[in-house]
Amino acid sequence: MDKTSSLSINEGKPIRCKAAICRKAGEALVIEEIQVDPPQAYEVRIKILCTSLCHSDVTFWKLDSEPLARFPRILGHEAVGVVESIGENVDGFKQGDVVLPVFHPQCEECKDCKSSKSNWCAKYTDDFLSNTRRYGMSSRFKDSTGQDIHHFIFVSSFSEYTVVDIAHLVKISDEIPVHIAALLACGVSTGVGAAWKVADVEEGSTVAIFGLGAVGLAVAEGARARGAAKIIGVDLNPDKFEIGKPFGITDFINPASIGETKISEVIKEMTEGGVDYSFECIGLTSLMEEAFNSTRTGSGKTVILGMTKDGFPISLGSYELLRGRSICGTLFGGLKPKHDIPMLVDRYLKKELNLNGFITHELGFGEINKAFDLLVEGKSIRCILWMDK
Amino acid sequence: MDKTSSLSINEGKPIRCKAAICRKAGEALVIEEIQVDPPQAYEVRIKILCTSLCHSDVTFWKLDSEPLARFPRILGHEAVGVVESIGENVDGFKQGDVVLPVFHPQCEECKDCKSSKSNWCAKYTDDFLSNTRRYGMSSRFKDSTGQDIHHFIFVSSFSEYTVVDIAHLVKISDEIPVHIAALLACGVSTGVGAAWKVADVEEGSTVAIFGLGAVGLAVAEGARARGAAKIIGVDLNPDKFEIGKPFGITDFINPASIGETKISEVIKEMTEGGVDYSFECIGLTSLMEEAFNSTRTGSGKTVILGMTKDGFPISLGSYELLRGRSICGTLFGGLKPKHDIPMLVDRYLKKELNLNGFITHELGFGEINKAFDLLVEGKSIRCILWMDK
Repeated sequence: MDKTSSLSINEGKPIRCKAAICRKAGEALVIEEIQVDPPQAYEVRIKILCTSLCHSDVTFWKLDSEPLARFPRILGHEAVGVVESIGENVDGFKQGDVVLPVFHPQCEECKDCKSSKSNWCAKYTDDFLSNTRRYGMSSRFKDSTGQDIHHFIFVSSFSEYTVVDIAHLVKISDEIPVHIAALLACGVSTGVGAAWKVADVEEGSTVAIFGLGAVGLAVAEGARARGAAKIIGVDLNPDKFEIGKPFGITDFINPASIGETKISEVIKEMTEGGVDYSFECIGLTSLMEEAFNSTRTGSGKTVILGMTKDGFPISLGSYELLRGRSICGTLFGGLKPKHDIPMLVDRYLKKELNLNGFITHELGFGEINKAFDLLVEGKSIRCILWMDK
Repeated sequence: MDKTSSLSINEGKPIRCKAAICRKAGEALVIEEIQVDPPQAYEVRIKILCTSLCHSDVTFWKLDSEPLARFPRILGHEAVGVVESIGENVDGFKQGDVVLPVFHPQCEECKDCKSSKSNWCAKYTDDFLSNTRRYGMSSRFKDSTGQDIHHFIFVSSFSEYTVVDIAHLVKISDEIPVHIAALLACGVSTGVGAAWKVADVEEGSTVAIFGLGAVGLAVAEGARARGAAKIIGVDLNPDKFEIGKPFGITDFINPASIGETKISEVIKEMTEGGVDYSFECIGLTSLMEEAFNSTRTGSGKTVILGMTKDGFPISLGSYELLRGRSICGTLFGGLKPKHDIPMLVDRYLKKELNLNGFITHELGFGEINKAFDLLVEGKSIRCILWMDK
């Protein structure tokens, strides 16, 4: 495929194309013709090649309360595209580049972007409500009546074309298949990053993962690649044991099958005192506490990846903490997108990282509502939507 | 001083000597003549040269409920001595060696002792109630009526002679003055270790320390030695700012002087978003939570050193955690006594670590009750008691 063909004839002009619009919370998306304006300064207009969808898309699709819910809106944030045109002051990107838009920003200028210890861009991360990164509620999308359409976490990949700020854009190798690369925009990178960069799982260690969705399976894959000796999956869906095995799951606990016994007690029994690393990938405070209590005295480390619905506090025994345990939370697996996504691509190309297994379905863009159903019903891990099908 | 003179004439026999006995909770210690039995297998009998006292001695002196409280008892756990005689199966120690007994065990054989990530000896650390490490409630001390006297956390240094298990014994260089070395048996090592080994404070970073007793001041000293740019002390005693300056305290917050404002808000204001590292050295859950909330989004790390009275849980905002913060607890500053105390001695000898400033008073052993008064009244940081004065 010549990815650069006919990419630049619309430079500086609006493009008319198809997008899947969410007009009302929880209602089927509607494929409509929209107008995508040219990129402003520090922005890039991208032709999307393929997009996946993740549970955050579903969450925001269902959400019906301001300020998080806004309609009409173009959802989608796991995609790969090709640069169609660039705005002013854009360095490092040119027409034809294969790029990965990513919801997590990296301005490359703030104290945190310059620190190796943080991936929390102080300049941008706290604002996730604006449409465009530097222009507030200004939108680059209009529907056929001329009404603005809202963006979604600075990506909006459920559209043939989108406009993305350079703080949210990563150039990637064109050696990796684009549908594999799309996985690296959110959940899979979050899981692998949590195992590699946040927990720093080492060979021979023991791991417990609460919740085996795409993020939890990616934690397992990261731990497997590091040579963990025992990787315990915890999930209410018993099918997840078989599903998890190719990603390294060696043992499984179904909380519905252990009676009054606590999950942490079962894990301590299985590991002679507790796992070296535990990961919570669901977002329930009770499970975060169980994950914490599952780790080994003296060195156990718990990583929280799940987001609670209302930011509820979690309660940790102070003696349990004092006994040498640690707990931390992470967004995007502690990864700095511009540095670490190319690293993950490289590990995939070297066959150290198994990413193919995450893709359970592939559909054409027009079948997007079916992809939502598959994810909501727990039938897919990741469904790739091809824009040209 | 010839430390080895007349050390071995009693080998294999009981020794009669003086000790300060705690006969009832909170009552003045009484200097009495006691009998110290010879060391059993894996034990060493030590002539104490000097001892300090720490708040844990005061806590156990006041305590009047079983099983933690036991009388009569010989308290004391910050001391340096010389090996008088050794039991069977003792490798690595010989008569005349300068040694530091330490409450925190290191068996050197268990999984955790062999791991670089843990200082929580799986074999021994969980038992801190026995008199002797390998012989349960068996005691090496008898009073003049022949009654057993209880040991205290495997050290019992308020005695001219004591018996210590080799899992609690560290051989140290005889180049360091013994009263300086005694500081390294508990609080000072805990604080420096927390800064160096647990938090790994780096040059130019910002630090907040809740509670400026010996442990908090030792955290400051550790952070100062690492080149921290700003070290904020938090204490209700306003004198602690001046006291803390030689240990590196650059800024000070008296919680009684900030009205309704939270300590964490003041710290965030002072540091443009929060400190890189916070340390709680008191043992109050409310302060642990404030310490956690004082750190920088994306990378802030909180270390808990204080022990709560009843193991109360602490409550952490799950969003605050998810935003890249971490919290951990530590006993003995994450240090492995046999490896890390000699390292601290070396840093002192190289003048990288200022330890002299912790010693505010020196008294003879007979004045031990005065040393308790000085500590309880907050007048001393550390008071050294010389056994031969």
